[in-house]
Amino acid sequence: MSVSVHLGDNKYGKAEVRVVRVVRDTARHEITDLNVTSQLRGAALESSYLTGDNSKVVATDTQKNVVYAFASEHGITSPEEFLLLLGDHFTGEFDWITGGLWQAELYEWERIVVDGAGHDHSFVRKGRATRLATVQKTGGATHVTAGLKDLTVLKSTGSEFHGFPRDRYTTLVETDDRILATSVTARWRYLPDAVAAGIDFNGAYDAIGAAMLSAFATTHSLALQQSLYEMGRAAVEACDGVAEIRFAMPNKHHFLSDLSPFGLKNPNEVFHAADRPYGLIEGTVVRDGVTPAPEAWTDVPSFV
Amino acid sequence: MSVSVHLGDNKYGKAEVRVVRVVRDTARHEITDLNVTSQLRGAALESSYLTGDNSKVVATDTQKNVVYAFASEHGITSPEEFLLLLGDHFTGEFDWITGGLWQAELYEWERIVVDGAGHDHSFVRKGRATRLATVQKTGGATHVTAGLKDLTVLKSTGSEFHGFPRDRYTTLVETDDRILATSVTARWRYLPDAVAAGIDFNGAYDAIGAAMLSAFATTHSLALQQSLYEMGRAAVEACDGVAEIRFAMPNKHHFLSDLSPFGLKNPNEVFHAADRPYGLIEGTVVRDGVTPAPEAWTDVPSFV
Amino acid sequence: MSVSVHLGDNKYGKAEVRVVRVVRDTARHEITDLNVTSQLRGAALESSYLTGDNSKVVATDTQKNVVYAFASEHGITSPEEFLLLLGDHFTGEFDWITGGLWQAELYEWERIVVDGAGHDHSFVRKGRATRLATVQKTGGATHVTAGLKDLTVLKSTGSEFHGFPRDRYTTLVETDDRILATSVTARWRYLPDAVAAGIDFNGAYDAIGAAMLSAFATTHSLALQQSLYEMGRAAVEACDGVAEIRFAMPNKHHFLSDLSPFGLKNPNEVFHAADRPYGLIEGTVVRDGVTPAPEAWTDVPSFV
Amino acid sequence: MSVSVHLGDNKYGKAEVRVVRVVRDTARHEITDLNVTSQLRGAALESSYLTGDNSKVVATDTQKNVVYAFASEHGITSPEEFLLLLGDHFTGEFDWITGGLWQAELYEWERIVVDGAGHDHSFVRKGRATRLATVQKTGGATHVTAGLKDLTVLKSTGSEFHGFPRDRYTTLVETDDRILATSVTARWRYLPDAVAAGIDFNGAYDAIGAAMLSAFATTHSLALQQSLYEMGRAAVEACDGVAEIRFAMPNKHHFLSDLSPFGLKNPNEVFHAADRPYGLIEGTVVRDGVTPAPEAWTDVPSFV
Repeated sequence: MSVSVHLGDNKYGKAEVRVVRVVRDTARHEITDLNVTSQLRGAALESSYLTGDNSKVVATDTQKNVVYAFASEHGITSPEEFLLLLGDHFTGEFDWITGGLWQAELYEWERIVVDGAGHDHSFVRKGRATRLATVQKTGGATHVTAGLKDLTVLKSTGSEFHGFPRDRYTTLVETDDRILATSVTARWRYLPDAVAAGIDFNGAYDAIGAAMLSAFATTHSLALQQSLYEMGRAAVEACDGVAEIRFAMPNKHHFLSDLSPFGLKNPNEVFHAADRPYGLIEGTVVRDGVTPAPEAWTDVPSFV
Repeated sequence: MSVSVHLGDNKYGKAEVRVVRVVRDTARHEITDLNVTSQLRGAALESSYLTGDNSKVVATDTQKNVVYAFASEHGITSPEEFLLLLGDHFTGEFDWITGGLWQAELYEWERIVVDGAGHDHSFVRKGRATRLATVQKTGGATHVTAGLKDLTVLKSTGSEFHGFPRDRYTTLVETDDRILATSVTARWRYLPDAVAAGIDFNGAYDAIGAAMLSAFATTHSLALQQSLYEMGRAAVEACDGVAEIRFAMPNKHHFLSDLSPFGLKNPNEVFHAADRPYGLIEGTVVRDGVTPAPEAWTDVPSFV
Repeated sequence: MSVSVHLGDNKYGKAEVRVVRVVRDTARHEITDLNVTSQLRGAALESSYLTGDNSKVVATDTQKNVVYAFASEHGITSPEEFLLLLGDHFTGEFDWITGGLWQAELYEWERIVVDGAGHDHSFVRKGRATRLATVQKTGGATHVTAGLKDLTVLKSTGSEFHGFPRDRYTTLVETDDRILATSVTARWRYLPDAVAAGIDFNGAYDAIGAAMLSAFATTHSLALQQSLYEMGRAAVEACDGVAEIRFAMPNKHHFLSDLSPFGLKNPNEVFHAADRPYGLIEGTVVRDGVTPAPEAWTDVPSFV
Repeated sequence: MSVSVHLGDNKYGKAEVRVVRVVRDTARHEITDLNVTSQLRGAALESSYLTGDNSKVVATDTQKNVVYAFASEHGITSPEEFLLLLGDHFTGEFDWITGGLWQAELYEWERIVVDGAGHDHSFVRKGRATRLATVQKTGGATHVTAGLKDLTVLKSTGSEFHGFPRDRYTTLVETDDRILATSVTARWRYLPDAVAAGIDFNGAYDAIGAAMLSAFATTHSLALQQSLYEMGRAAVEACDGVAEIRFAMPNKHHFLSDLSPFGLKNPNEVFHAADRPYGLIEGTVVRDGVTPAPEAWTDVPSFV
């Protein structure tokens, strides 16, 4: 009962290479803390799947070695630039490697404060969000996205939800004052021209993050969808180099406790923070006039 | 500095609705334990993003209610059939809902054995893998995928890795005997004809799972890529209704301990099971001649 | 503003050493998969805390090395026996090491079934529970505990809860039929005499686990507390070598869905499986007449 | 084969009650975000274990209700004061409840900065560490501990490790310059007199946290044990009300990458951040002259 099959989309590499780079040219050290994944594509790799012929398989161990070697040789100025170096290396060194996906998470550290000043070589992990970056090489083009995850925000008022359709299965009560909370995952794509012009990835990240936070805070929200859209608009406004931005935002429900059995009123003061289920709102905000590049997003981890 | 933007791809819904359905028509109960996510798409939903107008927003709370109500009204014969019911409901009931993605995880339970026999109403969670299912409705078509995750397997021999190219950054030693271990994530797409013909989703899942395990065991592996391909071939062979199957398989490295400093030999007996980094091998095995359906996979959680 | 302080209780070591041991004397391999933690105590270790004098500090790296070396030299017949070897080594080799705590988790693997028979060298991780073991050496004595965690069980009927006191803050409705579900964590202490007599730790583990499962199934439960007690009694009955057994059992609430808004009845068929909060029931069942040994439990991870 | 057994130590309650309290007396809101666990002890509870007689079982659901009701009635000035209220309530209201353990985690939020100023009602989760608190009532006494977990710190120099004993199993190379990193878990006990005098728990937490961070930064470390001790001393010095402080500090190894195969030097610049195994250093620093209170720590989650 043998059937005929063939190999479809594929890629392979090394995931979650944890590299910490210390810059110690002076007594005031700098550290960069990355989690890097490198994966390669190319038609010649098919033989490893079909017959176990590894003659074209750049070993995943080698990909790992390059991460550490490049951290030494080139330093890590930004996760985006580091991934661009990796992508250029593998597609340049091995002519059968025609593309790939390189990803990084960056964990931010702050200087420990001693007597009011940041210490030279002692750090505490910030923990507020994780910075994300990807480089996609496909069809001769190079795409760069950046982003963040686990940025948890909450408005204790300034959020309503009403006007939705009601049918047999609708029981939700309308509200004009609720807690709105979400844990933001966002990824934005940089315009190829901005990448070519040497955009300041670190500055862009900071500006976009601040703009999204501010937009979340100042948007009087009639739906989490609306907050998402305003955050996306703010991100695009904050940085000329942003082509589009994608969001996944769980609606982390905070249910008002029913205290009436105890003879107590609850004027939006006491809430139960629920785990599951949660709303899940996703959307993309696109700068008018940019050329679409869906291939930039191939296999970039989805937000669910 | 206002810029012009517009809304791109989007969807919204309720995630991780944890429903347990008991069939208790007789003293011998059956239980089905699902984690369901429902998300809707439709052009009319744009207004909730742009202006907070919710007049077309079927509340995520309502989507949750339907899950519980349908578990009562229709039972849960299989996760795939349950998701098909949900998808038909939302696209049928609300004419502006033109598509969506419905997902489920299923947790398997076994009867507790008492005096050699399975108990009527007492169960222990199996824990060996999690079953996955999705229904995608888009462009008037309906696509069904099934799968599993966290199926952890290991071969203590019968795995080699050599013949890979060597360059300046290559240090890996070739081996003709190593431990091969991975945690399989797989998703396969059912042919539309098979879905229309009422394929037995539960039977197919069992057959495909067994075929993959057997193929992993019996393939003498020259690369994890080769094992992946043989597992895919076996899955397609095991079920006529499978169009294609995607895999993400981390290479969970087991490094031979260097015991030579202690004057001990280590003939492939003692290993360190490493966490990170790990290899990450991905690939698709496609039945020859099937019509491609990339839209079936839109936003289906990637494997990274 | 210097204050006078001194060092209190302390211990140190290497945690989570992941060792996999393959027995390959014949073509039919056996594998043992452990996660080992070794920690040492002794008054002489104080100087490392007070002044950074490490002259008595058996390096945690050395402790790790011993785990791998002993896995080679002695094999791993059971986690308990392996930990006993480790404890004897460190207290025997270094006269200032007067005690310590050694812990292991064991992950069970099953043979992959091919054509109806278990394969010689291909395995699938069982995933149903994790086996636990500890050896405590203190005050010249050696204590052995064993246990398990993440054994998730559910009764779809045969569970009631009523008769509890009602006060101003009580709203819970009494029930004579509910789902009862928990994820069992249990640790039992072996009698010193049983350890000295060379008890079969693997056989005891299997017998105790089966007895607990059976007791959970067959106990008509008026409270999770009662189920706990009956499971403890069954464990003590199942093995003469058990002195006492401790349990932590979350009451994993399954709430009956209120389907009445949809005109549906719900005769204990459809439930919402909640995450948090959960009940947390803890208790110890002690064989009458045994000598208490609270020191056996020092620093053994609590169940919360 | 019935054996005689009896009930040993036990307690029960509701775990992980997620309560968010908003203070909205003015437009400038304050939020407190807690995860509360309440567990009760008392000899009269034995009957629920032995026979399922629940006549003395204050339902775990009732315990949960009290958390929400008290958040409304009393507010949450600090986690310690909130737990003290809970403990007094349950032991005061029900004369058979003779003790218990109440625990809280507190998640810190910061105001979102808009145009340079903190927003009135929009917050971002800080994420740097989780604050801990417990109240233990036993034998007529009340004990309060506070603490934190997941405070991750790193020194890129100023850490050595050498002078440890060498034996057959020792391979570790001595170093006079390494990265030192750990994720601090600490719990300190407040003196009963300080609690009685109405110590400022929030101020004490801030002072102790800052003192520990500063001590980590400024201690030139010859062993993580030494850093621990200096952090403990600093904590005791920072607050007159602290009787003792316990630490669990994993040594999160950062291994220098061997770049010599690539012809590169690595002067402490590029490191691999390892996951497992890790060192695990634990110790207690005690203020001279305080009365020991081991019962304060009963069932307080250990640090492993």
